[in-house]
Amino acid sequence: MKEIERKFLVKSDDFVKESTCINRIVQGYLNSAPERTVRVRIKSNKGYITVKGKSSANGISRFEWEKEIDVHEADALLVLCEEGMIDKTRYEVMVGIHVFEVDVFEGENKGLVLAELELKSEDEEFEKPEWLGEEVTQDPRYYNSYLSQHPYATW
Amino acid sequence: MKEIERKFLVKSDDFVKESTCINRIVQGYLNSAPERTVRVRIKSNKGYITVKGKSSANGISRFEWEKEIDVHEADALLVLCEEGMIDKTRYEVMVGIHVFEVDVFEGENKGLVLAELELKSEDEEFEKPEWLGEEVTQDPRYYNSYLSQHPYATW
Repeated sequence: MKEIERKFLVKSDDFVKESTCINRIVQGYLNSAPERTVRVRIKSNKGYITVKGKSSANGISRFEWEKEIDVHEADALLVLCEEGMIDKTRYEVMVGIHVFEVDVFEGENKGLVLAELELKSEDEEFEKPEWLGEEVTQDPRYYNSYLSQHPYATW
Repeated sequence: MKEIERKFLVKSDDFVKESTCINRIVQGYLNSAPERTVRVRIKSNKGYITVKGKSSANGISRFEWEKEIDVHEADALLVLCEEGMIDKTRYEVMVGIHVFEVDVFEGENKGLVLAELELKSEDEEFEKPEWLGEEVTQDPRYYNSYLSQHPYATW
């Protein structure tokens, strides 16, 4: 229930041809506050409800709880969400022994591409692909919950 | 997923001897806003996450979605909740063909006793027991989410 994750900008679209799995994700927030984010997500015709807590000081670790729910129930919950939906395409890219999740945002966040990497410990080493850009793990503007309220187009 | 419910004050404790089921309930809120309430509840060693939408104008109908979750996960989610936990004992009382849920509040809401009745339609008739007091369905102060932020002791 502890999520350890690092986040990066992306320099080129070379990740696309290396990806093994592509999914559209639509998500909204029942609470976008970083202390107790409540997210409703539909991914590949499956529904999820996810609760995240406040990040650690370095931004890497965060409490996360997720439960799969019926996709029609997720649809009904999305209606209740705060204004500001996130719509993105997720590419999963295997790099060495790790999987990068590269999110290409649509709508008001169009132009933004973020790569996320889940780790088992904060100091776990990993291979950096050529298309990986600047690390933004500590920058709260790149939280999806923040982007839902302050989309990239308005930065 | 539509909850139809009427709520009443309680005039006497005669409901106690008529009750068939007694449970302690502890609950907190990941969002106490009435438009998208997100509640975490532990009842009788079971966990639940519940999302409620805005009430109808007469206060009777409201979108509700609930999912049972692991009780230890519910415990972990309670830690993330807003300050202001609700602690109450629920008595279930059969009256005619209906079940009243009578909540006796503890802690900062001590002194408050509320009876709730779930109905199949807004105009469904029901038998009123002698201990039933004034109807407060339309009064938003009696929402548990409101009580969590503005406990009865502060009224």
